[in-house]
Amino acid sequence: MKHTQGVYRIGMVDVHGMKLADVARLIRSRQHSAVEFTEAYLGRIEKYNARLNAYLKVFADEALAEAAKADKEIEAGTVRGPLHGVPIALKDIIDIAGHVTTAGGILLPDAPAEEDAEVTRRLRSAGAVLIGKLNLHEYAWGGTTDNPHYGRCYNPWKEGYSPGGSSGGSGAAVAADLCAAALGTDTLGSIRIPSSYCGTVGFKPTYGLVSTRGVYPLSWALDSVGPLARSVEDAAIVLGVLAGPDPREPTSAMREAGDLLPESRPSLRGIRLGVIEGYSLEEGGDSPRQKAVTDAVAEALEHLISLGAERVDLDLPEIRLALRAAFDITLSDAAALHAQHMEDSPDSIGADVRRLLQSGAAMSPARVAEAHRQRAVLRHRFAEVMREVDCLISPTTPVPAHSFEGGGGGSATFTGPINLLGYPAISVPCGFTADGLPIGLQIATGEFEEKKAAAIAQAYEVSTPWSDRRPEGFD
Amino acid sequence: MKHTQGVYRIGMVDVHGMKLADVARLIRSRQHSAVEFTEAYLGRIEKYNARLNAYLKVFADEALAEAAKADKEIEAGTVRGPLHGVPIALKDIIDIAGHVTTAGGILLPDAPAEEDAEVTRRLRSAGAVLIGKLNLHEYAWGGTTDNPHYGRCYNPWKEGYSPGGSSGGSGAAVAADLCAAALGTDTLGSIRIPSSYCGTVGFKPTYGLVSTRGVYPLSWALDSVGPLARSVEDAAIVLGVLAGPDPREPTSAMREAGDLLPESRPSLRGIRLGVIEGYSLEEGGDSPRQKAVTDAVAEALEHLISLGAERVDLDLPEIRLALRAAFDITLSDAAALHAQHMEDSPDSIGADVRRLLQSGAAMSPARVAEAHRQRAVLRHRFAEVMREVDCLISPTTPVPAHSFEGGGGGSATFTGPINLLGYPAISVPCGFTADGLPIGLQIATGEFEEKKAAAIAQAYEVSTPWSDRRPEGFD
Repeated sequence: MKHTQGVYRIGMVDVHGMKLADVARLIRSRQHSAVEFTEAYLGRIEKYNARLNAYLKVFADEALAEAAKADKEIEAGTVRGPLHGVPIALKDIIDIAGHVTTAGGILLPDAPAEEDAEVTRRLRSAGAVLIGKLNLHEYAWGGTTDNPHYGRCYNPWKEGYSPGGSSGGSGAAVAADLCAAALGTDTLGSIRIPSSYCGTVGFKPTYGLVSTRGVYPLSWALDSVGPLARSVEDAAIVLGVLAGPDPREPTSAMREAGDLLPESRPSLRGIRLGVIEGYSLEEGGDSPRQKAVTDAVAEALEHLISLGAERVDLDLPEIRLALRAAFDITLSDAAALHAQHMEDSPDSIGADVRRLLQSGAAMSPARVAEAHRQRAVLRHRFAEVMREVDCLISPTTPVPAHSFEGGGGGSATFTGPINLLGYPAISVPCGFTADGLPIGLQIATGEFEEKKAAAIAQAYEVSTPWSDRRPEGFD
Repeated sequence: MKHTQGVYRIGMVDVHGMKLADVARLIRSRQHSAVEFTEAYLGRIEKYNARLNAYLKVFADEALAEAAKADKEIEAGTVRGPLHGVPIALKDIIDIAGHVTTAGGILLPDAPAEEDAEVTRRLRSAGAVLIGKLNLHEYAWGGTTDNPHYGRCYNPWKEGYSPGGSSGGSGAAVAADLCAAALGTDTLGSIRIPSSYCGTVGFKPTYGLVSTRGVYPLSWALDSVGPLARSVEDAAIVLGVLAGPDPREPTSAMREAGDLLPESRPSLRGIRLGVIEGYSLEEGGDSPRQKAVTDAVAEALEHLISLGAERVDLDLPEIRLALRAAFDITLSDAAALHAQHMEDSPDSIGADVRRLLQSGAAMSPARVAEAHRQRAVLRHRFAEVMREVDCLISPTTPVPAHSFEGGGGGSATFTGPINLLGYPAISVPCGFTADGLPIGLQIATGEFEEKKAAAIAQAYEVSTPWSDRRPEGFD
């Protein structure tokens, strides 16, 4: 792992606990420069990254040069976009021209990417300063970010605990304020799981809304790219930059994002909260850790109702089929993607991912076909359901963050089905366990209803204290 | 096989060579009754079906009762729709309430369907008289209609020859004027192949335009239902009845068909005919039978150009990937569908279909996943192509009809890729071999461009003599 060289002036601006929206505003209004912010984040990375192993690469010199350029533009009266001068970090599965993409493994070509991923290009044209690349579960295929090649990434909220995965570096970096926001990818929950574990906001867009071109795939049918950030507003600002048509990407929905930012105090009057019976509030199980999660979500539900929303109970046993189908599609897609890797160099793949790829390769083709059929059937069924409710409410994960030995089994229980449906979903902090671990609430809306998801999540966020808590020891 | 009982008066109206549009008009104008037409077709079935084995079941009494009801309605001034009183036959894979559906096999429940398929319901509400159910390749999985349980179906154009498949009974029945039109299904070409072999017009709609609910599936991702008829106009009339949204069918495109009927003399001015280099006119090979096909298609192309269209040559080597992917999706879907059949009673499945199901079950899951990915990539690529051209021109099949021993290998070469893309396509007669076998021209347009396909096909049809030829011996 490369570390940044030199000492940066943390003191000039204090970004601890600062939101992206504020960073952007302070730069635009020239109260602080992009260079100051970049130095501040670089300083925090210098100070804290060794504890977290969130960054795999830090582009200190490049980032400072980009920041200086942004500052010059500001002085000349040019604002490139909503992220002008704002330091953003990317999961190391997204191409940045001139830098190697590892995807968390050691089997990808050891040559710099020739072209930016579409999301990277969009970040740049919105003015972002690309500050570094973040740790992840190998090939984005796992929920703990226990990377066999680049080391474990740690959760800022508790020593020795996993930040979740696969975008664990993104969750840890945002939670410890080592960037203003980060990009992650999400196939079965890989943006939302680390958001839940790390107490950040994760926003998985509708499948196809954000181009995946230049992002190393896991499941071609389910992959999404999106932000992890400090607040719903921050996440919506970044997603607004990422979203939009890409004629060069076959899976692009070729759709403009529109304005995703909710009103500052959105009303929940008339919003129907879908609660799936026997699942949304019960699926986790009843260990004390699971109970802490379902209790927090039940309380969040009451809170949303107190804000004017109404609860609609849904009888939808089909939800259980959705996770299985999403998992089977991922297994078979990943087996196809990594077939050559598994043939040539299985020993260069960590044990857990290798096991998944082997089990993908051993599936029956009929089961793959059935999963693809099931996907279409469930999308049809849920399209009906989403006429009856505005969103689906559940925990983001059945349990909070765990140790690396503690197991993250079932972490995709609530997130995976949403990937199968292709819907947007936000994970927003909704409480803490007795030992101080964050709990995530998942709010999923219908296709291309990002703005509605953001509005509900923001109404919740601004009237609860959870998003403002910071992990200890990262001041 | 059940035969109809009694002798019907062929002489009253002579339906030999008569088009559906004329049958419908003569009934509406009360020049002849629906009963007369029904009797005429029943008479021809009585006389000719033993030679063809096209019908598996004939609903003589029911059809006559339906026809009598249609006549009463006409007398009362009620016309239910464009097929009022018109005798239509259905491939025996489409549910008709009260009748067993065999799907060409012996493993489906031996109980009458409780409900009409959506297409059956639509036929009835447009006034059609359902006259019988037609032979097919077992489970619609093969191109020859060499049915191990219900016997071979024969091609009216040459004794001992296959009518193509899987909708062979539909092709033979229409070619021999044993119904005014027939329904078939098409996964890799099963409407268009028998249309090509039997000299009829086959119209495969855009995937999702016609509901497949109540139709026994082969590949859930590729199946279409559509008409085989005597002319483009006839096919468009029937397709207009079949098409439309079905909220109960997950794969329904939920789209109205709109008016599919072309102008009576459509102009081809400005129509761009896509010809894929090294494929559209070359893929067949160069045996004399293959050459007869490519020569006829090359001539048809010249003819279309003489009508005002222009030729656009396309460099699209990807087309070869499309057939492979369509085939792999069908193999895996069919393996999933018939898994229980193969486990419980493999010996109750004919050798050729059993072999296909075995090879489907033996595929790698990665290959299935790759086929699904390829489908999306190719659909994206061809969406670009279809901005440059109005249609893709090719033979329907690389060779004309063959004997049952002669082999139909490669019969889906030109049709299968269109199923992968989901596009509509018409097969229209474009010539005859020296020994009198019909040759089919395939015209495929972009998604939901049925009307354009019909217009091009009709412009061709009305200015060439091919569609008016009838097979000998079926006067």
